[in-house]
Amino acid sequence: MHVGVLNGPNLNRLGKRQPDRYGTHTLADIVTDLEETADRLGIRVSQFQSNHEGALLDWLHRHQEDLDALIVNPAGLTPYGRPLYDALCDTGLPVVVVHLSQLYRYYGAETQDLFREMAKAYIAGLGWRGYRVALEYLHEQHTEAAGPPR
Amino acid sequence: MHVGVLNGPNLNRLGKRQPDRYGTHTLADIVTDLEETADRLGIRVSQFQSNHEGALLDWLHRHQEDLDALIVNPAGLTPYGRPLYDALCDTGLPVVVVHLSQLYRYYGAETQDLFREMAKAYIAGLGWRGYRVALEYLHEQHTEAAGPPR
Amino acid sequence: MHVGVLNGPNLNRLGKRQPDRYGTHTLADIVTDLEETADRLGIRVSQFQSNHEGALLDWLHRHQEDLDALIVNPAGLTPYGRPLYDALCDTGLPVVVVHLSQLYRYYGAETQDLFREMAKAYIAGLGWRGYRVALEYLHEQHTEAAGPPR
Amino acid sequence: MHVGVLNGPNLNRLGKRQPDRYGTHTLADIVTDLEETADRLGIRVSQFQSNHEGALLDWLHRHQEDLDALIVNPAGLTPYGRPLYDALCDTGLPVVVVHLSQLYRYYGAETQDLFREMAKAYIAGLGWRGYRVALEYLHEQHTEAAGPPR
Amino acid sequence: MHVGVLNGPNLNRLGKRQPDRYGTHTLADIVTDLEETADRLGIRVSQFQSNHEGALLDWLHRHQEDLDALIVNPAGLTPYGRPLYDALCDTGLPVVVVHLSQLYRYYGAETQDLFREMAKAYIAGLGWRGYRVALEYLHEQHTEAAGPPR
Amino acid sequence: MHVGVLNGPNLNRLGKRQPDRYGTHTLADIVTDLEETADRLGIRVSQFQSNHEGALLDWLHRHQEDLDALIVNPAGLTPYGRPLYDALCDTGLPVVVVHLSQLYRYYGAETQDLFREMAKAYIAGLGWRGYRVALEYLHEQHTEAAGPPR
Amino acid sequence: MHVGVLNGPNLNRLGKRQPDRYGTHTLADIVTDLEETADRLGIRVSQFQSNHEGALLDWLHRHQEDLDALIVNPAGLTPYGRPLYDALCDTGLPVVVVHLSQLYRYYGAETQDLFREMAKAYIAGLGWRGYRVALEYLHEQHTEAAGPPR
Amino acid sequence: MHVGVLNGPNLNRLGKRQPDRYGTHTLADIVTDLEETADRLGIRVSQFQSNHEGALLDWLHRHQEDLDALIVNPAGLTPYGRPLYDALCDTGLPVVVVHLSQLYRYYGAETQDLFREMAKAYIAGLGWRGYRVALEYLHEQHTEAAGPPR
Amino acid sequence: MHVGVLNGPNLNRLGKRQPDRYGTHTLADIVTDLEETADRLGIRVSQFQSNHEGALLDWLHRHQEDLDALIVNPAGLTPYGRPLYDALCDTGLPVVVVHLSQLYRYYGAETQDLFREMAKAYIAGLGWRGYRVALEYLHEQHTEAAGPPR
Amino acid sequence: MHVGVLNGPNLNRLGKRQPDRYGTHTLADIVTDLEETADRLGIRVSQFQSNHEGALLDWLHRHQEDLDALIVNPAGLTPYGRPLYDALCDTGLPVVVVHLSQLYRYYGAETQDLFREMAKAYIAGLGWRGYRVALEYLHEQHTEAAGPPR
Amino acid sequence: MHVGVLNGPNLNRLGKRQPDRYGTHTLADIVTDLEETADRLGIRVSQFQSNHEGALLDWLHRHQEDLDALIVNPAGLTPYGRPLYDALCDTGLPVVVVHLSQLYRYYGAETQDLFREMAKAYIAGLGWRGYRVALEYLHEQHTEAAGPPR
Amino acid sequence: MHVGVLNGPNLNRLGKRQPDRYGTHTLADIVTDLEETADRLGIRVSQFQSNHEGALLDWLHRHQEDLDALIVNPAGLTPYGRPLYDALCDTGLPVVVVHLSQLYRYYGAETQDLFREMAKAYIAGLGWRGYRVALEYLHEQHTEAAGPPR
Repeated sequence: MHVGVLNGPNLNRLGKRQPDRYGTHTLADIVTDLEETADRLGIRVSQFQSNHEGALLDWLHRHQEDLDALIVNPAGLTPYGRPLYDALCDTGLPVVVVHLSQLYRYYGAETQDLFREMAKAYIAGLGWRGYRVALEYLHEQHTEAAGPPR
Repeated sequence: MHVGVLNGPNLNRLGKRQPDRYGTHTLADIVTDLEETADRLGIRVSQFQSNHEGALLDWLHRHQEDLDALIVNPAGLTPYGRPLYDALCDTGLPVVVVHLSQLYRYYGAETQDLFREMAKAYIAGLGWRGYRVALEYLHEQHTEAAGPPR
Repeated sequence: MHVGVLNGPNLNRLGKRQPDRYGTHTLADIVTDLEETADRLGIRVSQFQSNHEGALLDWLHRHQEDLDALIVNPAGLTPYGRPLYDALCDTGLPVVVVHLSQLYRYYGAETQDLFREMAKAYIAGLGWRGYRVALEYLHEQHTEAAGPPR
Repeated sequence: MHVGVLNGPNLNRLGKRQPDRYGTHTLADIVTDLEETADRLGIRVSQFQSNHEGALLDWLHRHQEDLDALIVNPAGLTPYGRPLYDALCDTGLPVVVVHLSQLYRYYGAETQDLFREMAKAYIAGLGWRGYRVALEYLHEQHTEAAGPPR
Repeated sequence: MHVGVLNGPNLNRLGKRQPDRYGTHTLADIVTDLEETADRLGIRVSQFQSNHEGALLDWLHRHQEDLDALIVNPAGLTPYGRPLYDALCDTGLPVVVVHLSQLYRYYGAETQDLFREMAKAYIAGLGWRGYRVALEYLHEQHTEAAGPPR
Repeated sequence: MHVGVLNGPNLNRLGKRQPDRYGTHTLADIVTDLEETADRLGIRVSQFQSNHEGALLDWLHRHQEDLDALIVNPAGLTPYGRPLYDALCDTGLPVVVVHLSQLYRYYGAETQDLFREMAKAYIAGLGWRGYRVALEYLHEQHTEAAGPPR
Repeated sequence: MHVGVLNGPNLNRLGKRQPDRYGTHTLADIVTDLEETADRLGIRVSQFQSNHEGALLDWLHRHQEDLDALIVNPAGLTPYGRPLYDALCDTGLPVVVVHLSQLYRYYGAETQDLFREMAKAYIAGLGWRGYRVALEYLHEQHTEAAGPPR
Repeated sequence: MHVGVLNGPNLNRLGKRQPDRYGTHTLADIVTDLEETADRLGIRVSQFQSNHEGALLDWLHRHQEDLDALIVNPAGLTPYGRPLYDALCDTGLPVVVVHLSQLYRYYGAETQDLFREMAKAYIAGLGWRGYRVALEYLHEQHTEAAGPPR
Repeated sequence: MHVGVLNGPNLNRLGKRQPDRYGTHTLADIVTDLEETADRLGIRVSQFQSNHEGALLDWLHRHQEDLDALIVNPAGLTPYGRPLYDALCDTGLPVVVVHLSQLYRYYGAETQDLFREMAKAYIAGLGWRGYRVALEYLHEQHTEAAGPPR
Repeated sequence: MHVGVLNGPNLNRLGKRQPDRYGTHTLADIVTDLEETADRLGIRVSQFQSNHEGALLDWLHRHQEDLDALIVNPAGLTPYGRPLYDALCDTGLPVVVVHLSQLYRYYGAETQDLFREMAKAYIAGLGWRGYRVALEYLHEQHTEAAGPPR
Repeated sequence: MHVGVLNGPNLNRLGKRQPDRYGTHTLADIVTDLEETADRLGIRVSQFQSNHEGALLDWLHRHQEDLDALIVNPAGLTPYGRPLYDALCDTGLPVVVVHLSQLYRYYGAETQDLFREMAKAYIAGLGWRGYRVALEYLHEQHTEAAGPPR
Repeated sequence: MHVGVLNGPNLNRLGKRQPDRYGTHTLADIVTDLEETADRLGIRVSQFQSNHEGALLDWLHRHQEDLDALIVNPAGLTPYGRPLYDALCDTGLPVVVVHLSQLYRYYGAETQDLFREMAKAYIAGLGWRGYRVALEYLHEQHTEAAGPPR
């Protein structure tokens, strides 16, 4: 099993970016944790971060044929990132959306979230643990049955 | 550490209720899993389910002094359960909201969710695993620092 | 065939409650009429009224396995009774919604009605006759074809 | 007693029009059933269908002096047929609105329905039986008391 | 000068239609008054009423080349009569909208009125006098200057 | 009969204010015309203009006992002049609202107009003639019947 | 005179519940104060609190025949407690709504309040004094005139 | 293959109607062009225009059995022509919507367009060419595969 | 302690203004009652009424340095009186809003009320008693603790 | 060149009014600064402040003939000051709107601002410097070209 | 004549992307078809696709001086691509918007479409043919008259 | 002091882009002016323009540690540029938003502007001068006090 992890704009600043809200772990820390978890589960993980929505699409187009599932933190693309949304839908893969903070406490409950309906699972506020939980979940879904996760 | 787990209306039907959407585990299965997890972590967990919003409040009023954190699945109370919302806010405890299914796929992204802003963390679509993840997260938060989880 | 009849909050006051609007028949009168109709049709009918939404759910969970169809007057639960709505949907049974008065004349056309879309048939303003009509309709649907009512 | 029955645009296609939704009875079948019911009750019924809203008004203006009540299926005029709405209000007669299907399942709960507030009774989803129920109801109302139906 | 007067659905019932609201004058009375006014002013007036929006369009298409101005009471077409609205705009003629009653007292201030913006003048609540006032106004505008009314 | 005429903010600039839209008559011209019309009809008219909403209220409070009807051009107070609106309602007198231009062509059809529902008659776009028409209408209403205008 | 006092969900926690906002008086303190006030005024007062909306209805149905007026603090039922709202309306008794805190400072001005329109008087932010003021007011209204309070 | 072409209200005025916006071709010119195109493609085309929505329905009901596809310019019926919308949906035929002008430039982007979702293809602003393009497209779809156009 | 009392537009008409709704007490009666209450409590009260929003601001600017609290009945300024709202906020003093009638019964629950959120306490429907209650409340708050009322 | 400067309600309190937000300069300080700037530029400036919207109109009507441009701080009139808005539009002069604070940080981004569209330039948050910048800008525009500022 | 063709995010995946919805032609196929069409018409066509909105702008800025018209498929930029929208408007060139599928069937009729109003022509649902039709249309417009397409 | 200046999409076209609206100065002219102003004030300024939102973020992440304040013209990113908005907020630096034209005259007052609330100061319509004014303002704020600008 091969899981792609996409991180949206500004997430390269993790650790330095508002640590009260986003925690003190850097993106590199999170990737290391994900790779260790993947090793433990006997699966593969590939991560990509960009401040350019177009680069996220390019990466996804290049790799989606090799992927079985996706973990996505849309970050600043949450309310208006329709190109990313379309690209994710087009893959037909199961997607878990992860937010480091519980974003509705910051933006209010009526903030638009394009990815709210299409996500298979939605995790917000668990910090860096959210990624690991998502990976474990996708792995379980994948192995649990012969067919693909529903 | 003592964590309260509140389950809202109709969750007594888990396992029999739309298994495609909510899974085949019963509420008893979930409680058993939570108790095993709690044992492993060396903490305590108390669960209560009711179809009566008032009973959830009564239970919470009776136990909140002894609790350190809450896991809540508001279920049918999600859009309009203001009494439960008020009761949770009044406790001042950290609350993790758990939904078995990714509810926005069923009700649409603009469904009102009273609990969206007040939750410290929000987990939807992980099925019965969501409770366990929530418990582990609250435990980590509790032990990680001297002060209460922020 | 066995039809469940659920009556929501304040309907125990029928006959005494605003007779200009709701008529002078008591709930007991309506139940008697329904039982006579059921006898005539050779079917069974079970009625339950409560001011407690939770009690309506408890009753429904206890009996839904034995029922073939439902007649529901959500009364005060019409705009915000999501737990009852979820419980009804979960049964998978055909539901006829009955209102004694034509409620839109009182609350205005834009009053939210949670049950408007899920009902198989919708009857408002026929007073106590609405229940009888609903019962006859469900019976006809049930007997008309081999398959379940569509 | 003389009851007018008005059927709006496209109802001439009944029987041929989406039978899954509207049933296999033709408009002629429904009229026959209404006339038999009227005979049984000792009253008179006059039906008129048109695809032309203006023709429905012409018919109503010509006959309203002789009518005691109306059964109306506005069909395609449901959301925007203000001229028909005005014409019905001007008669001062009691109006029962009948829809063959439960329209909110098709158009969604927020579909505008001009006739929702002015109807004395509202019946949706009973198929051809809806007309007969409406006729029986209007007859009972008419005979029940000396004064006109309230 | 030749002024067309268009009257929308249900206005053929004037005099008989809710006299408290619309007055006791019939449409014939209003036309007589308009013709006398036109004679006095030395101009021509042609009136047409129909319950069929299409007939209003047919009439307008047939006569618009010969007309210098229009008086329109859209009546039941006020909120949704876009075909009439388009036809009026296409003529390029000055249009005075006349309502017998002050319609916002009946429908509320937020009732949609398609004709509110395109009318050169707008008169509501003057009863049958509204037509005469409109005619006098259009005549004055026409004679006041060499160019067409602005 | 004594009719009060209230003119709102900026109407003292009539004649100089955007003559394309409001015409070349000054407020003095309009008052002269109204007084001549009043003389002809054998009634009395009193006009007051102010840029101060409070002054309009003061004037109205001082004179309302002596008045039988009101003509009001709220001008800039049209969308938010609730104090004037309240003061007019409190008089219990019939009110005709007059606008010199057809205001919806300038502000769009969804501009809020507080006075739209309370006016007995509503005249827009007739220029200075609108006042005269309003006066004649109020006089006719007053003399037509024994009772006050409805 | 006999006044019923209904207190909604979570008010049993008064004194312990956010004392900064709701004050340090317990519900028992408030009831004692109300009974002393009632004694002083020579009237009777009966109080009932429940976290169960249904229990509030049951209590009201049982006692409403003996009551002359109601004081209600809907608390958590403020935005969506339609069953309570219906039950209160059905009594036909004058209702004073009391909120301990000025709720709009906490929830924002656009929070829905079902009870805002039906209340005869509305008191928010006076803390425990609000109940006493309400009682005195209802007593004055009752004794002031022969007829019931308007 | 037989394609029906329906033209809504005011389109009989083409050529004379605002030529800047709608072009100088008459409806007869367009029909001639369509018939030549149909001849070239070896198919049949039948056109009908009416200012009466009801007549469009009558025509459609009479011919729909013989048709394989439809081209519709709803013109003035665009925002509120629900009867036409229902009639088109009932046919089950593929529908191409054609507007001569790019209507959103005139009415603004939020203009309601009932036909926007049900159309298989949507062409606006190509003038008379839009019809020809629609016909060629429907022909290609029809011949391209054994099955009906998707 | 010195309390300012501000009364907005049209309140000079109290007693004469719709006595069914606002009562028969004049503003002078209310001021007399307030002064007697102030004497009894050993505090000072200063009242000012104006139909001019600007005059209310002038008065407030002149006296706010000498005041400890405010009672305000914004009357006609309730929905749009932002200058008064700003002036009140700028004082930093505790404000009790008083309405004589329960205004939401007249204007509907969704009427905008600028003062709803900023008020420390909100009293509606108690008639002239509302002012006295407000004064007693502010006095109690002032004397209860060393610090200013919260 | 002669520039008028209009300051709305409460701005007479500058310096004393919330100095954290509006700064410690008084209105007199700002006027002195503007006059020095005007001297330096060889132009004239006239300032007027009032808490009375009507007085602002009176002043503007009296002086607008002599003015070449306007600087306006609508202050409390920002959301609902339509009379001032109309008066400004009627002058046909270029208007620069100045706010001392960045008002959207206080009232939220959706606060209505009537003057947002009509202003030639819009300056918020520069404190007293905003006026000087506006004056310099209007002067440059005036001298830059023969024609009036666009 | 030289026509630019801009294709937005994800369109590089054509042929592989949801072929049921977007067809089996690749972007290269479409470009080939456009070039053949251009050859036949004796004009030039230049195509550019990017997943980066910024790259679309860069390309447009570099080439717009050499272009006479544009064909644009905004794809994922349809609802929020304001930078592209601004860039297109700034060119002053006629723009035809092309969507391969009829997008409103997928996203619903109320999906925001920034490009709906600015497009000279709008084509949706014709698949790859849409581009060719757009090219032919722009060519005809260009050659039809001396002046630029209106 | 070091001020960063960020210019959004399409601003590289300044001078060539709609000169009536944006002026004839190029971006290079503006940068030259800013550098001269910075020299005069003894501070540093660094400018960056890109059509790629991601590039603006990359630049900001690289330089924000060295900057004391920001001037931002979001241009086409004004309504939906959440990634830029997040990046600006994360810096914690004071931001002045500059628009060359008064954008609300073009897009209407209800255009969404993400940057409206977070900006410390907001300048629109001053053309190229807006940047210079912003720089002078930030410099004054910086030097005025020991602490950072508030």
